[in-house]
Amino acid sequence: MRVERDFFKLLNQSGGGHLQRALVRSILGEGAKHSTESIMDWVAGERDSTHVNVELTKFSELSQWEFDSSGHLAHESGGFFRIEGVEVEMNRGPVSKWRQPIINQPEIGILGILTAEIGGTIHALMQAKIEPGNTNVVQISPTLQATRSNYLQKHKGKAPRYLEHFRGDNNAVIVDQLQSEQGARFLRKRNRNVVLFTRHPPSDGGQFRWMTLAQIKEISRLDNMINMDSRTVISGLALNGCREISDALSGASHPISELYRSYMFDPEQGPSLWSLNQIFSWLTHLKTEAECEVSPCSLQVLGEWELSDERITHKTGRYFDVVPVKVTIGNREVTSWDQPMIRPHQDGVCALFYREIDGVVHFLMQAKMECGNLDLLELAPTIQCLTGSYKAGSVPFVPELEAALESGQGVHVDVMQSEEGGRFYKEQNRNIIYNCGDSIPLDLPNSFIWMSAGQVRNFGRFSHYLNVQTRCLLALL
Amino acid sequence: MRVERDFFKLLNQSGGGHLQRALVRSILGEGAKHSTESIMDWVAGERDSTHVNVELTKFSELSQWEFDSSGHLAHESGGFFRIEGVEVEMNRGPVSKWRQPIINQPEIGILGILTAEIGGTIHALMQAKIEPGNTNVVQISPTLQATRSNYLQKHKGKAPRYLEHFRGDNNAVIVDQLQSEQGARFLRKRNRNVVLFTRHPPSDGGQFRWMTLAQIKEISRLDNMINMDSRTVISGLALNGCREISDALSGASHPISELYRSYMFDPEQGPSLWSLNQIFSWLTHLKTEAECEVSPCSLQVLGEWELSDERITHKTGRYFDVVPVKVTIGNREVTSWDQPMIRPHQDGVCALFYREIDGVVHFLMQAKMECGNLDLLELAPTIQCLTGSYKAGSVPFVPELEAALESGQGVHVDVMQSEEGGRFYKEQNRNIIYNCGDSIPLDLPNSFIWMSAGQVRNFGRFSHYLNVQTRCLLALL
Repeated sequence: MRVERDFFKLLNQSGGGHLQRALVRSILGEGAKHSTESIMDWVAGERDSTHVNVELTKFSELSQWEFDSSGHLAHESGGFFRIEGVEVEMNRGPVSKWRQPIINQPEIGILGILTAEIGGTIHALMQAKIEPGNTNVVQISPTLQATRSNYLQKHKGKAPRYLEHFRGDNNAVIVDQLQSEQGARFLRKRNRNVVLFTRHPPSDGGQFRWMTLAQIKEISRLDNMINMDSRTVISGLALNGCREISDALSGASHPISELYRSYMFDPEQGPSLWSLNQIFSWLTHLKTEAECEVSPCSLQVLGEWELSDERITHKTGRYFDVVPVKVTIGNREVTSWDQPMIRPHQDGVCALFYREIDGVVHFLMQAKMECGNLDLLELAPTIQCLTGSYKAGSVPFVPELEAALESGQGVHVDVMQSEEGGRFYKEQNRNIIYNCGDSIPLDLPNSFIWMSAGQVRNFGRFSHYLNVQTRCLLALL
Repeated sequence: MRVERDFFKLLNQSGGGHLQRALVRSILGEGAKHSTESIMDWVAGERDSTHVNVELTKFSELSQWEFDSSGHLAHESGGFFRIEGVEVEMNRGPVSKWRQPIINQPEIGILGILTAEIGGTIHALMQAKIEPGNTNVVQISPTLQATRSNYLQKHKGKAPRYLEHFRGDNNAVIVDQLQSEQGARFLRKRNRNVVLFTRHPPSDGGQFRWMTLAQIKEISRLDNMINMDSRTVISGLALNGCREISDALSGASHPISELYRSYMFDPEQGPSLWSLNQIFSWLTHLKTEAECEVSPCSLQVLGEWELSDERITHKTGRYFDVVPVKVTIGNREVTSWDQPMIRPHQDGVCALFYREIDGVVHFLMQAKMECGNLDLLELAPTIQCLTGSYKAGSVPFVPELEAALESGQGVHVDVMQSEEGGRFYKEQNRNIIYNCGDSIPLDLPNSFIWMSAGQVRNFGRFSHYLNVQTRCLLALL
């Protein structure tokens, strides 16, 4: 096997105190290589020097894309991704049977963040990345966003920058997980989420900057600055077991929030409303009751969806369109290509409620079925209303959220965050973290459950449990 | 949510001492309701009074089964299961592309064992179940083996006996997990594995008997007595956190094996060769490299497989046949039906190696790709050679196993166990647990890894990590 080292073993070994202090400094934002101001200037500069033009065109005029014999929209190389039709039948939710377009991108992607100690503080190497669908043109993304073929260098193409740091056994592992993407939009898509620590930090510059954890967190509170790929990777960071760090942060002059401390440090098997055993039983029971059949169908016969040469759109005007676009993009180099994109009709809302139960922070999770899930149900935030469905039905806990937003009381985070800009055209969701206190009781509707912060983090280590919306919210802690 | 109680909370609450002692007595085999001898007599009696006739017939003469328009063999009701053809392409193993028949049975099945305290000892309610493919006609199976439709009572059919104990919220949960079936034979099949504890034990009799844990273990050391469904459910039993029980067993006059104690009690995050973080990284890396494409094809065009009216068979005579059979079965009532079955060409071998590393028991696991896996790779035992492939290739660790079997040294368990008798006709595998000591080094080939007993058990709590062969071997501990 790869004999890579474990970052946590480095932290806890004798002589690991230096690294622990570097991590504490990063969390507190001390000793940053670049000031946050200069990072914001640099992002603004990248944005200003970037030209992005996304022009609507016609499916029949898309270069290199065409409808294949199965009625799917595919690239003539067979690569990238396909837009396919699916017929979905499930026994949960307001609608039991429908058809819809979905993205099929079977390759596992690699989302990697490289970290290192620089000047006594842990830094993460982040990229200012242009994507055609980005709301802000440029968003901060992981060090490496590569397709599997690119990562494995199967076609001997140009290697992405810093790729060599993610191959081989030299660096210590902080996080390395396969995690799912949006189950309502992607058919069983997964990405490898990896964070490594190197003893030999490469230099930044160009589209890359070293940043502290505190800087990433600070910037994540601004609308549409940290991209989805960064957020899902960051959500995997947890420091349980590092009691010295927890203690150091308690005594720090800049106290961190109790919520953050809970998620980062609470034990997995500490006190909680339900035992892990009970949570498994609840989830297994729901999965046993669940029915979800997904079968492929042609985009030409999508029922409620109309296919014209300009777009695929739902008759009610809800949900999203699939549109053919011509992209011209670049700053230093200018490139141009055609592709289909998903364009939503309205913004969505994702909200995570939390409260203390017997002095321990618990999150209000729901088991949500989405047709692209590999295993029927994943744990979604308290409220997850993507475009179209928010106003459509009576979604639990929406009235409570609306009241909270009106009063402003208990709203810990409230920020707009974008979906992945390579596939989605300016799709954004309002992300809210809300301390509901005891306004929400311990007894919940059947598909909802209170889980302690340590339990949520524990599920995050295994695949197919926390959905991408949950992970993105957790990243904001 | 279902507010069922957690058995471990009952154990550890004040007043749980009585239950702890009842569990210790069950593990040690004290206070059994029926002697093991009388249980063996009862099984023999069931066997003698049972008539099973499995007669080979022709596909064209199968009542209610036919090849549908896609070339799959299906029941005319659309129910039960289908035999389908698949084309598999993968980048691991000696063969990169092949076609094969596979069983598609999309419904989640329920495998449930009911436990209770009887006369101061925990007992499990087991069933003497007849299946047409059973090597011993009758094998000991869980209290409940039900299809999902039967469990949910969707068609108002006759309820299986004791079903009511598995529905509702009255009983405490010991185990409740979704787990996979054989990935080489089933397409993404899963079962719910559940063990409950009731305060109100129903009476046994007929095809059911209350047994202690020690009795089940004792009987599992005999060939083909405990069926596969029982073994996978039992593998989920673990008592970590119950220090009092661990202590009681250490001091018992009948000491239990160190191996058993490790699996049942070792902490998940205790000392181990690799941290959980490193194991995740190893597995994620292998999954990222893995390629496995499975597409449906007709049984009529299976390449190396020949379809005649008598059977579907591989040209080389290896692997297995699909055969049409007429079953007549019964003891009290006699019933008769037709179905296809899988008939293997030879027995298989599954072996799990273990050794101590720095005083902690570690198992030698491999990441194995099978075409029916939901998530590419699962953790398989050290050696897993199902029919046909054992003699075909050079399988790692087979020479070491053969040497061990010759000398007899370190062989902890060596027993024949059957596959599920409802689908497989007298398919059995030799199950071996072998203490290899330091004859196997810490450094292993790429797809193998040493995992501590506590780590293996922890992975067993989550779905899609331990494959069914691993779980069945662990059940023998």
